[in-house]
Amino acid sequence: MDKFDCVVTELKVWDIRFPTSMGHHGSDAMHGEVDYSAAYVTLKTDSSDGIIGHGLTFTLGKGTDIVVKAIEVIRPRILGRNIKDVFQGFGKFWQEIVRDGQLRWLGPEKGVVHIAASAVFNALWDLWAKKENKPVWKLLADMSPEQIISLVDFSYITDAISKEEALEMLKKNEATKQDREKILLEKGYPAYTTSAAWLGYSDEYLTKLCKEALEEGWTKFKVKVGANLEDDIRRCRIIREKIGPDMEMMVDANQRWDVKDAIEWMKNLTQFKLKWIEEPTSPDDVQGHRVIAEAMEPYGIGVATGECCQNRVMFKQFIRDGKIKYCQIDSCRLGSINENIAVLLMAKKYGVAVCPHAGGVGLCELVQHIIMFDYLCVSGTTEDRVCEYVDHLHEHFVDPVVIKNAAYTAPKDPGFSSEMKTESISDYEYPTGAVWQKLLKEGKFTL
Amino acid sequence: MDKFDCVVTELKVWDIRFPTSMGHHGSDAMHGEVDYSAAYVTLKTDSSDGIIGHGLTFTLGKGTDIVVKAIEVIRPRILGRNIKDVFQGFGKFWQEIVRDGQLRWLGPEKGVVHIAASAVFNALWDLWAKKENKPVWKLLADMSPEQIISLVDFSYITDAISKEEALEMLKKNEATKQDREKILLEKGYPAYTTSAAWLGYSDEYLTKLCKEALEEGWTKFKVKVGANLEDDIRRCRIIREKIGPDMEMMVDANQRWDVKDAIEWMKNLTQFKLKWIEEPTSPDDVQGHRVIAEAMEPYGIGVATGECCQNRVMFKQFIRDGKIKYCQIDSCRLGSINENIAVLLMAKKYGVAVCPHAGGVGLCELVQHIIMFDYLCVSGTTEDRVCEYVDHLHEHFVDPVVIKNAAYTAPKDPGFSSEMKTESISDYEYPTGAVWQKLLKEGKFTL
Repeated sequence: MDKFDCVVTELKVWDIRFPTSMGHHGSDAMHGEVDYSAAYVTLKTDSSDGIIGHGLTFTLGKGTDIVVKAIEVIRPRILGRNIKDVFQGFGKFWQEIVRDGQLRWLGPEKGVVHIAASAVFNALWDLWAKKENKPVWKLLADMSPEQIISLVDFSYITDAISKEEALEMLKKNEATKQDREKILLEKGYPAYTTSAAWLGYSDEYLTKLCKEALEEGWTKFKVKVGANLEDDIRRCRIIREKIGPDMEMMVDANQRWDVKDAIEWMKNLTQFKLKWIEEPTSPDDVQGHRVIAEAMEPYGIGVATGECCQNRVMFKQFIRDGKIKYCQIDSCRLGSINENIAVLLMAKKYGVAVCPHAGGVGLCELVQHIIMFDYLCVSGTTEDRVCEYVDHLHEHFVDPVVIKNAAYTAPKDPGFSSEMKTESISDYEYPTGAVWQKLLKEGKFTL
Repeated sequence: MDKFDCVVTELKVWDIRFPTSMGHHGSDAMHGEVDYSAAYVTLKTDSSDGIIGHGLTFTLGKGTDIVVKAIEVIRPRILGRNIKDVFQGFGKFWQEIVRDGQLRWLGPEKGVVHIAASAVFNALWDLWAKKENKPVWKLLADMSPEQIISLVDFSYITDAISKEEALEMLKKNEATKQDREKILLEKGYPAYTTSAAWLGYSDEYLTKLCKEALEEGWTKFKVKVGANLEDDIRRCRIIREKIGPDMEMMVDANQRWDVKDAIEWMKNLTQFKLKWIEEPTSPDDVQGHRVIAEAMEPYGIGVATGECCQNRVMFKQFIRDGKIKYCQIDSCRLGSINENIAVLLMAKKYGVAVCPHAGGVGLCELVQHIIMFDYLCVSGTTEDRVCEYVDHLHEHFVDPVVIKNAAYTAPKDPGFSSEMKTESISDYEYPTGAVWQKLLKEGKFTL
């Protein structure tokens, strides 16, 4: 492990924002006009190989500078650390950063400080995989069950899953891992598209996008709902008519409703044969999700949530007690791969299907590795599982996702697919980048 | 309401830190060495009365600058706003700030962005009360039930309590409010002390502080536990022997344990006749608290939590589903008074005793107003209720709390008791203040 014997010498962080609000992209029932953004991190070491780790956490524009500040506060804990020690006790290192006695009060393990830590850990994972010359999914898949377990901080979840249980689950999948890897390399990981039906789009645009998506081979479609019931019914009808009765359709309310309202509203949409209702209410309301799930059961509609689920302790409750059917992990909300593995293990034990949240900036690039690892080593299946895809902003990444036949192709390049192009950084750094300077000069945005 | 017809012209924010780690004050099982700090806010308007609103949110040192940054990002939403409009639709204004479409992603309603909003709302409440020339508790107590309800954002909690139910509860207390105000002014609000038993203190120091506290008239004592079982047993024994069998004793684990560990550990401490175990596990684990509460019931020990409970949605679950017996609201963790009222109302409905968290920087000063309002208008009782008190850092406030006979005296000065002394700000502003410059020069701290 000699190539790992080096120390972190530099951690840089950028505020990168894309002016997506200009095209109403990303609009939903709770987040009207947003500028998809990222706090973007690069890590350098004193190794002669010159390898740089790239990581990010996704944001919606304003406040990206708060996350940047948080990463700067975490920075001294990373600088000077020996990479070999970090990776050999990665679960412990994760706990050390997340449990910092003074910073912890600002979460704990949630919100700005947690997503900031996520960006740093994502960069560490990219660094690790690049040093091993493997994509992250393959780096993980090649680990022994013991190694995988050592990545995870089990604190606060041992009442739901013990290390020993987790180890046994992973060991059971060892024998058939190679077979699944072959299938993955051939067929990819199944995806659905959210690109066709954002709230801000007109009916005409919706129809056009839906037609195009069908032509591209998509078979699973998600529709944003929750702002206006009549609009929702009309839009769901348009899409169901376009895609026909057999394709899968999901709806997403982005936390718009109270518990009772969610149930009432959804009764009007059951006619459209929906696979799931996503984020029907507050992401903090485990008990509320349970009540909604019970009300939706007779209609065959599952409850999905997770993109705003703050950490493994909340996921423990959603998975074990909240009756969710679909668990939507996020590569930047949780504390990177380390914490996501904890969730994958609990989902496996309690029979919940992991269907990752993606889109945003780089979320597809990152989360594909995690869900592929889940297929190979944890759940061992893609049945009733599907990963979100949004056709947006991939052009800014050096190793963007590749979709073929409505499936994510397994990445081949080393790393976490998290590296942004140099020119994207210089164009979209906020507010000094060339694109922002132009928009500000033209008066299309103000500081 | 003419004196309110003015606009906010300035919002200033300071990073104030006290080097409390030098004396091991504030040490607990999860937060080893901390420097009690605050992001401190002042609000000015263009009114000729020159009244300034002062607010703060409590932090533990490092990361205070992250909260300062978050307040700066919120600032443009406050500047230029008409104070009359803000206070007339205060619940709506609260929702507007907390639901900002772009910032919301960084919570939502939790962590850095939420405690930052809290500092701003605390300053607004100070401003309002000073303009009415009343202490905040009296401002609230003089409001009609309808006015009180209008302060609150009921979203995500209507399945636990409706506006109509809340209104009815408040109306029932109207007739007897004056009687309780007389009692409050005479006797104050009952308090307990945490000052005697922080983890970092030696047995000798513990004994000395306990003796002094008894001499001062304290009858209720809280002990920090969770780092080492033998230490806990020895320390609990020392204190129980000192205070005798009849006085109240509580223990506080500051989230140290997993669910099963909490139950096992606590079985060793039941011999000391404890009123509650506080924060036995993660503040996110509603279901875990329920399991611990059920295990502690046979021993007559209640479960208490709240100081790290992120918002009203989590409190809804703790109060209704988590079997907690004591609800520990915090004046700076929740979104100021507005959100705390939502919690007081739910606690009243579900029969949970509100026993506020205090200490830190200014938490006693702020929360006394809220719990006095609870007594006058919401719960209508002090039975089995007690407010935390820590004898620490009060000298930095212009209108510090006054404890008499182990009770908080009702504040008489107008405002929220949240104003810090000018010299405290100039001494402890980080890192430019005089005290910090000296400590840095002496090498006792490094940047």
